[in-house]
Amino acid sequence: MRITVLAGGIGAARFLRGLLAVTGPDTATPAEITVIGNTGDDIWLFGLKVCPDLDSVMYTLGGGASDERGWGREDESFVVKEELAAYGAEPTWFGLGDRDLATHLVRSQMLGAGYPLSKVTAALCTRWKLGLELIPMSDDRVETHVVIADAAQPSGRTAIHFQEWWVRHHAAIPALGFVQVGNDSARPAPGVLEAIATADLIILPPSNPVVSIGPIVAVPGIREAIAAATAPVIGVSPIVGGAPVRGMADACLSAIGVPTSAAAVAEHYGSRRTGGLLDGWLIDEVDASDLAAIEGHGIRALARPLLMDDLPATAAIATAALTLARALLPR
Amino acid sequence: MRITVLAGGIGAARFLRGLLAVTGPDTATPAEITVIGNTGDDIWLFGLKVCPDLDSVMYTLGGGASDERGWGREDESFVVKEELAAYGAEPTWFGLGDRDLATHLVRSQMLGAGYPLSKVTAALCTRWKLGLELIPMSDDRVETHVVIADAAQPSGRTAIHFQEWWVRHHAAIPALGFVQVGNDSARPAPGVLEAIATADLIILPPSNPVVSIGPIVAVPGIREAIAAATAPVIGVSPIVGGAPVRGMADACLSAIGVPTSAAAVAEHYGSRRTGGLLDGWLIDEVDASDLAAIEGHGIRALARPLLMDDLPATAAIATAALTLARALLPR
Repeated sequence: MRITVLAGGIGAARFLRGLLAVTGPDTATPAEITVIGNTGDDIWLFGLKVCPDLDSVMYTLGGGASDERGWGREDESFVVKEELAAYGAEPTWFGLGDRDLATHLVRSQMLGAGYPLSKVTAALCTRWKLGLELIPMSDDRVETHVVIADAAQPSGRTAIHFQEWWVRHHAAIPALGFVQVGNDSARPAPGVLEAIATADLIILPPSNPVVSIGPIVAVPGIREAIAAATAPVIGVSPIVGGAPVRGMADACLSAIGVPTSAAAVAEHYGSRRTGGLLDGWLIDEVDASDLAAIEGHGIRALARPLLMDDLPATAAIATAALTLARALLPR
Repeated sequence: MRITVLAGGIGAARFLRGLLAVTGPDTATPAEITVIGNTGDDIWLFGLKVCPDLDSVMYTLGGGASDERGWGREDESFVVKEELAAYGAEPTWFGLGDRDLATHLVRSQMLGAGYPLSKVTAALCTRWKLGLELIPMSDDRVETHVVIADAAQPSGRTAIHFQEWWVRHHAAIPALGFVQVGNDSARPAPGVLEAIATADLIILPPSNPVVSIGPIVAVPGIREAIAAATAPVIGVSPIVGGAPVRGMADACLSAIGVPTSAAAVAEHYGSRRTGGLLDGWLIDEVDASDLAAIEGHGIRALARPLLMDDLPATAAIATAALTLARALLPR
C-alpha cells in the first residue's frame, strides 16, 4: 500500500507518528509512505535557509524534536542567537537554536553547492531515519507572505513574511490575506506528482488549511494531480470544537472568511466530486453534529476522538483515517 | 603618534594588549593604532568565512577571548559542531564554537551582501570596542596552503590548507613549503598602504614570521610600502631561547630553512638598509648573546624580558619597543 501525505509542521508530524505506528516499516501491514512537505514557511535567516515544516517532520519522526516546545530540537541551547543579538544582527525574534542551526548550515551549504532542496532534504533525512520519504512540495523558492494593514502605504496595506507574522507578532495582527510569493513559477519537486498519482490513499493530516496545506496545493500541478488521482483523499480536521487543536489556524481561517469549525474547513477544501480536495473528512466526536452538513457537501464524514494526546490515541486517529478510506473504496 | 602593527593571531593580540596599556585611548600618551591583520589563515567552513587571526585580535582586545585556550571565545560551547558531526558534515577537526560561529554568520552574511572584508571587520569591531583600528591585509581571498609529501602524486607532493595542517595535524607533517593561494592578484585592503606610509612607528609583534607576518608582507605592495615608509620598523622576536613563545613557529621556520632562533628570524626579516623589513629587533634577555650578530646584520637590537606572562610584563615589552624606536629616530 502506498500512502501519500500532505504535511505542514508539528500537527502533521504527530499524525505521522501515529500513522507509522499502524503502517510503518515495523508493523504487520507496512505501507510505503511519502510525505509532501510545505515549504511556504521557509525563510532565509543570517544567510541560512530555514525550513521549519520539513524540520518539524524530520525531528519529530527522527526522535530529535522538543515535544514540550512543539518546534525545534530537544535539549536545545540558544548561544548563537544570543551572540547574533549582541552583534545587533536582525531578526532577533526567530527562535534559532544551536542544534537546529547545524541543520540549516548543512542545508545551506548543500544548496550553495547546487543541490536542489529535495536532494538536500533526502540527505538530511538519512541521519534521522524517518521510516518514510519526505519530499518538499517544490525545489523552487515559494514564501507565504501575509497581507496586513499599513496606513503608511498608498494602498493601505503591506505584506510581511509569514514567520514574522506568526513568530514575531503571534498572528495578533489581523491578516487581510495570504500571498504565495514565487508560486506562479514554482514546479512540484521531483517525485511529488508521482507520489500523488500512484498512491492508494492520500491523507491531509490535521495541518493548518490556509498556510500549510494551502501552499502545497497552490503549487501549479499539485491540485490537478490530486483531482486526477485514483486514490481516495481523506482529511483529518485540525479544528476540534471550534478551535485549532494547536497553533493559530483560526487567525488564518478568519482572514480568508472561513469560520473556525470542522464543517467549514471541510467546505473550504471541498468535495472531489465538485473539483475540491476531499473524499472523506475525519472530525472529532465533539463535532458529530456536523456530520450531516459535511456529507451534504458530498464528503463522507466520520467522527472519532481527534486529540493526539499520546501515541495510542494518535495511532487510533490514523486507523480511523484508514477505515474511512476503506469505506470509500469501490467494491 | 601613529603606530601601525602587522598582526597574526594570539601572540600579536596579547602584545597589542600591552601596547594599548601604554599608548591606548585611556593613557596619557594615546597613539592612533592601526592593526593590519593576517587573513592567510582564513578558511571557508560549512559555507561560512572564518578569519581566525582577525578574530583573535578582536576577541582578545574586546575582552571576549578565551585566555586559557588561546583561541576562540571564553565561556564557549560546541553544540553546533557536535550536530554537524552527527550529520557527517566535514571537516570535524576545526574547533568551531557556538559563540564564535555567530561572528562567522554575521561576517558571511555581510560578505554575501557584497560588503568587502574590511567593511565587515569594521562592523564586527563596533561591538568589541578595541581601542584601535583593525584592517585585514586584503579584501581579496588569500589562503596559506602547506606543501607536504604525497607519494600518490606524480610530483610526490600535494598542498593542504594551513588550518588542516595546523589544527588537524598539529603541524606534525613536515612542511616542504608554504604557498599563498590567490596572493598574486590580491591588493592591500583600503587603508593598509596609508597606515604604513603615515605611521610614526611600525611594529612587527611576536607573530609567526612565516605564516602570520609572511602572508601580510607578501601581498603585492605591502613590502614595498614598508621599504618606503619614513617610520622606523621594530620587530619583537617570537622566538625566545630557541623555541617559539607560543605555537609551532619552529615547524614553519624549519620548512623554509631558517633556524629557530631570535637571530635567525632577524636575519630572515632582514635589515631595511639592505631591502629587508627591520630597523630594530627586540629579543629576550636569554638571547642577549645574539645582540652583536643581529647588529652585524644592520639591525639595532635590544634585549629585554619578552614573556607576556601578565599585562605589566606585556606593557613593558611594548615600552621597550617604543624605546628602541626612539633610539632609531634621527635627532
